[in-house]
Amino acid sequence: MYQSYSKQSETSATPDRVKKLRTQLRGLALDGFIVPHSDEFQNEYLPACNKRLLWLTGFAGSAGMAIILANKAAIFIDGRYTIQVSNEVDMDLFEPLQVPQNQPGKWIAQNIKGKTRIGYDPRLMTLKTIENMSDLVSGKNPDCLFIPLDSNPLDLIWEDRPAQPQTPVSMHPVKYAGQKASTKIALLQKQLVAEKLNACLLTDQASIAWLFNIRGKDVPHTPLALSYAILHARKKPELMIDPQKIGKVVKEKLGKDVRISPMSKLAQRLEALGTRKGRIAIDPAKTSCWFNDRLKEQSELEVVHRADPCTLPKAIKNNTEIEGARAAHIRDGVAVSRFLCWLDTKAAKDIDEITAARKLETFRMQTGQLRDLSFETISGSGANGAIVHYRVDEQSNKTFTQNSLFLVDSGGQYLDGTTDITRTVAIGKASREMRRHFTLVLKGHIAIATSRFPKGTRGVDLDGLARMALWKAGLDYDHGTGHGVGAFLGVHEGPQGISKAAMTPFAPGMIVSNEPGFYKTGSYGIRIENLVLVTPEQKPTGGERAMLGFETLTMVPLDSSLIDTDLLDRFEISWLNDYHRQVHRLISPHLETDKERKWLKRSTKAL
Amino acid sequence: MYQSYSKQSETSATPDRVKKLRTQLRGLALDGFIVPHSDEFQNEYLPACNKRLLWLTGFAGSAGMAIILANKAAIFIDGRYTIQVSNEVDMDLFEPLQVPQNQPGKWIAQNIKGKTRIGYDPRLMTLKTIENMSDLVSGKNPDCLFIPLDSNPLDLIWEDRPAQPQTPVSMHPVKYAGQKASTKIALLQKQLVAEKLNACLLTDQASIAWLFNIRGKDVPHTPLALSYAILHARKKPELMIDPQKIGKVVKEKLGKDVRISPMSKLAQRLEALGTRKGRIAIDPAKTSCWFNDRLKEQSELEVVHRADPCTLPKAIKNNTEIEGARAAHIRDGVAVSRFLCWLDTKAAKDIDEITAARKLETFRMQTGQLRDLSFETISGSGANGAIVHYRVDEQSNKTFTQNSLFLVDSGGQYLDGTTDITRTVAIGKASREMRRHFTLVLKGHIAIATSRFPKGTRGVDLDGLARMALWKAGLDYDHGTGHGVGAFLGVHEGPQGISKAAMTPFAPGMIVSNEPGFYKTGSYGIRIENLVLVTPEQKPTGGERAMLGFETLTMVPLDSSLIDTDLLDRFEISWLNDYHRQVHRLISPHLETDKERKWLKRSTKAL
Repeated sequence: MYQSYSKQSETSATPDRVKKLRTQLRGLALDGFIVPHSDEFQNEYLPACNKRLLWLTGFAGSAGMAIILANKAAIFIDGRYTIQVSNEVDMDLFEPLQVPQNQPGKWIAQNIKGKTRIGYDPRLMTLKTIENMSDLVSGKNPDCLFIPLDSNPLDLIWEDRPAQPQTPVSMHPVKYAGQKASTKIALLQKQLVAEKLNACLLTDQASIAWLFNIRGKDVPHTPLALSYAILHARKKPELMIDPQKIGKVVKEKLGKDVRISPMSKLAQRLEALGTRKGRIAIDPAKTSCWFNDRLKEQSELEVVHRADPCTLPKAIKNNTEIEGARAAHIRDGVAVSRFLCWLDTKAAKDIDEITAARKLETFRMQTGQLRDLSFETISGSGANGAIVHYRVDEQSNKTFTQNSLFLVDSGGQYLDGTTDITRTVAIGKASREMRRHFTLVLKGHIAIATSRFPKGTRGVDLDGLARMALWKAGLDYDHGTGHGVGAFLGVHEGPQGISKAAMTPFAPGMIVSNEPGFYKTGSYGIRIENLVLVTPEQKPTGGERAMLGFETLTMVPLDSSLIDTDLLDRFEISWLNDYHRQVHRLISPHLETDKERKWLKRSTKAL
Repeated sequence: MYQSYSKQSETSATPDRVKKLRTQLRGLALDGFIVPHSDEFQNEYLPACNKRLLWLTGFAGSAGMAIILANKAAIFIDGRYTIQVSNEVDMDLFEPLQVPQNQPGKWIAQNIKGKTRIGYDPRLMTLKTIENMSDLVSGKNPDCLFIPLDSNPLDLIWEDRPAQPQTPVSMHPVKYAGQKASTKIALLQKQLVAEKLNACLLTDQASIAWLFNIRGKDVPHTPLALSYAILHARKKPELMIDPQKIGKVVKEKLGKDVRISPMSKLAQRLEALGTRKGRIAIDPAKTSCWFNDRLKEQSELEVVHRADPCTLPKAIKNNTEIEGARAAHIRDGVAVSRFLCWLDTKAAKDIDEITAARKLETFRMQTGQLRDLSFETISGSGANGAIVHYRVDEQSNKTFTQNSLFLVDSGGQYLDGTTDITRTVAIGKASREMRRHFTLVLKGHIAIATSRFPKGTRGVDLDGLARMALWKAGLDYDHGTGHGVGAFLGVHEGPQGISKAAMTPFAPGMIVSNEPGFYKTGSYGIRIENLVLVTPEQKPTGGERAMLGFETLTMVPLDSSLIDTDLLDRFEISWLNDYHRQVHRLISPHLETDKERKWLKRSTKAL
């Protein structure tokens, strides 16, 4: 179960691999090739066999894209990865460029001349990505063609490529899911009928897992079973999945609602759709263009672009899932609290980042209910904490030093819920500057936690609240304030979020993270992350309109030694005291030792 | 100069006009017809001859659209006009529907069956509007056609239609504009060349006025000269305008930079564009579809959709315009302060809304520099103040009552700048509830005024800050927090703004209003509006990033008797005291009587 902390790749292999790839491209008469992070399932986490970007460039981040031209190459990463990319990628071979300030399409346009053929693997890229890119290029270079390739030239040179994952599928009981698969299917079918659609193609793995109440272990950290599905408006949905993954019991249960066929029949099943006139919906933001191209080939079909119909109902948790999330967060809160107590008592002597992460994982395993970590633990001491999506390995591993900060961002997968929490703690005594920065981040965190807002409010409407205290101090952080979280599913899920790009209105039942931060490059990182649940709020006296608000789910103390109370107003202090009182009430009964109970009491004392 | 306060229309005429229009439609074999508020110039303010929506429905608001079907009709208005529409429009004839919750396209789709022909005047509607609408309809009713009409059936039945405006054009001196027309033209031409465009069609009247440094008086409140222009990439721009409007001096000055032709030559000049191959840009959000259709008819032309190139440079004021805005706001602040002193001293005995508005206009005229009001004064006492875009007329006019609130939203056009200010004042003694509501609105106003934000921040990112204090009390307001303002041009200009739809990043030099409000229907309205200028801010100690902020331009005291200081924190109180200190410093030297100076001193006393 323990996470591995060995370095995922060696940059030293890169020059040779890039060279071989360029040879392949020349053979195909291509002037360039696109290597996205994503695989054909468009998941955040990839099976080892699909980590093409990592294999080619050494970059281990969870989002990114490389573009290889004949004499030039670039890697596009977002603000989370600006430091990491320079540690992992050979800068002589790849120019690192930050999105959205830099756009791959614009970079291509600037670096090509005249007739140019850029190849891409249509299984790995969504329609939206390739369209945006070619729009940007064709405005400047109408002679540049984007060529979908039948086979991926990178796969041909990847000699020791790992095998496809083959893990068993299990049913996710209604006790946790809160709703039978048949009920969900019927609801979505009604929607298809209303929109005059004959079927809808599902390629998002989390959507399939949610709709059919199934879970697998094909990728790390998210309990997915790699598969495709066709939801028909008026007949049984089809699930295309490797039959070896489906045991007898699951086959019987699932078979009642779903027609199962092997994944190898995918092309055939898509063709079968085309034997009759019909309107088929696909989600251009989630579906590889390969599907779009296949379906469009069939003259009887009208391909319609619609948002994946599972996305919104999956994001809006039902009461069972909400109760599950609360229980999972108390359980997880006990584990994280025990870890923080251990860290505090050890006074961080001779601890290093890997030891800390392992210890935290041990406490989570001791709950007896951990299914997986919900992502690779970020365990960053001192300067490593300033690398937003830092992932410790044996080379980067740092022993804690006195009077520094330690940032730990981690989460667990439990049958009843997915957690994600970040705490920043002082190792020894924090400087005045560290306390000031921590308190500014805390002000942003509290602004989100205490916000109220009418129906229709989107994440974009709240993001600024989390930043204003930092902005007034001339500071900011280069990541969103919050992302959606699934129910024993992805730790990052849409459409909800709190960021400049979060355009979906909040609805009661959505779970989202609240995680402002501040990063002093080369010195320390600060992030305070709780998950919050969107809830309807009672009308206050004199109130005219129904408002929504956030219920904080995460139950773990914040390090009070990092708070400069002079920078907080009385409402902020009162939120913090209320939160700590609640943490104590919910976590204390589950602690086993006096030492831990005393630590919790001390850590949740009112300011 | 005085604004007229007579009612603009009589609803009693509506049934007859609607009946006549339906007869016309039957003659044209149309099942419906669209009557937008806008005219062929897509301005906010219309010459009397183009107020078609008002003439047909009685609705005098500044935005809206009616749709007339054979047996049904609806009028679409936004949240500002929900009360007003019910006072002005015959509800038996028109169903009032609020956008964006209701969409004209959806309503059409729901109310038609089978083959349907909906007519529209392509001169009055932008490509974007008609496309959005037909998209919404065709999804549900593929058999519905939208028919562009050669002549407007409403014009045929409008018997006593006023004449076209014919006001003289004047040059706007560089002393105020800050930049020669030739400089602006050269800059934009460079941009056209870079984008490989041969020309760009300008139909936005404010863009034309800005680019050529001309002003006119063809519409109320905005100094526009109705015209069209073609900006060529490599030759003199063309201005199509009624030659009678151009005097000898203007003709000489303007003629150096611009080729002038009569407006009647419009179609011919557009055809001339098509005699050679070329790429012509039009702004689909601002240009009537008539232009698009005309240009597309010409096979040699490629019509490209681009944002009007004047919009952004016009919004970003240069140093001369900024200095002008500051001067105009002090001058206007003196007038409004004198008005508030007069109101206070009269203790509002026997004052009514029209008297108040006239008095305010008198004070503005006494500056000796007022060119026009920048919009029709909103002078709302008691319940009338709750009508967001209330416009007093002799029928609605209300005498002030004791212990009520008075809301006055007004502005002036001066050669050096355009102003827009709202003050809410207590007539007699305000109730505790009024003071609480005023203070919640003030908290939102201060949140915007004191905000700091990095480059790239858009209005949408700040809008929530203005609302949070109200949201926490279960309250809100149904309008944006701020709109852009021009320099001796439109009091509403894009692309800057503070609202859920404001997606353009702020840039130093932009002017925007900061005007949160609260409206208790049937009782009172509260709004606090200052104009603010986007400015670069000095990095605070320890700051890492350059931030922008707002400099408040409007200089008029707020009514301190309406403030409940218990609801403000020390930072908010300190902002208010600083603001009042500055108002006193800048306004006091320009007051003429001791009484006024004493009033100002009292009104700006520190809390």
